[in-house]
Amino acid sequence: MQDQHLLQPGQLLARGVSRCLFSLGFATLKEFTPTRGLRVDVMALGPKGQLWVIECKSCRADFTGDQKWQGYLEWCDRFFWAVDLDFPTEILPADTGLLLADAYGGEIVTMAPEAKLAPARRKKLTQKFATDAALRLARLEDEQIGRSS
Amino acid sequence: MQDQHLLQPGQLLARGVSRCLFSLGFATLKEFTPTRGLRVDVMALGPKGQLWVIECKSCRADFTGDQKWQGYLEWCDRFFWAVDLDFPTEILPADTGLLLADAYGGEIVTMAPEAKLAPARRKKLTQKFATDAALRLARLEDEQIGRSS
Repeated sequence: MQDQHLLQPGQLLARGVSRCLFSLGFATLKEFTPTRGLRVDVMALGPKGQLWVIECKSCRADFTGDQKWQGYLEWCDRFFWAVDLDFPTEILPADTGLLLADAYGGEIVTMAPEAKLAPARRKKLTQKFATDAALRLARLEDEQIGRSS
Repeated sequence: MQDQHLLQPGQLLARGVSRCLFSLGFATLKEFTPTRGLRVDVMALGPKGQLWVIECKSCRADFTGDQKWQGYLEWCDRFFWAVDLDFPTEILPADTGLLLADAYGGEIVTMAPEAKLAPARRKKLTQKFATDAALRLARLEDEQIGRSS
């Protein structure tokens, strides 16, 4: 297990989020780039092929400084915020999901509305998720595997 | 990088195979289970969504003892054998691909014939590849993520 003292608050949240989603049958990939110029905190792939984006916000400033989140909506079936118990959830926008988490786990408090991806985009995203995950794994096993993506 | 003294001959071949396929834009996953009861040495996902199976054979006996390989054909677009330079390639069946490899790399010598997967199976396999890769990665990062699959 990673030493949690080396992880930033947002990364600790992401760990709890991944554990929560794993218990729901999802696999997650952190810092996933659905398309050039966009990087989401957590992309989750569900047992039925669902693709969810979860943005982890460790504090109010972390949220208010985020100018990009609306751009993520078109790259997932559902969009969630993940915050801890101290976060002022009333500042979060309507029509988004909410996942309360800490470093150790979490739970979905508000299910995000669903806006299903078009089949072609789902296919492309799932393939990119697969490729990125396999390459990250391969690089951990073999430093000769390139590090360009 | 893994200490290659700890790897079996077939695993060393698989490493070279992965490096070769990476250079062709593929991502690979070792010991992938396309369906219950079948486990392939290397499943490779290509830039256009191609799914290739590569079976690594370290010696003649390793090949002649394999009763299962024909069952793999229906789980990929192309099927390859990966062997080293000392392998008696004349014993390999026709209508399969050949990849010559060692621990450090390899090259495709005979392109396998293509038998394209049906879309529904491709979708399911790609999704399983994505899930398995992400879960293996997650388990390396977080020992609390379950180890059941």
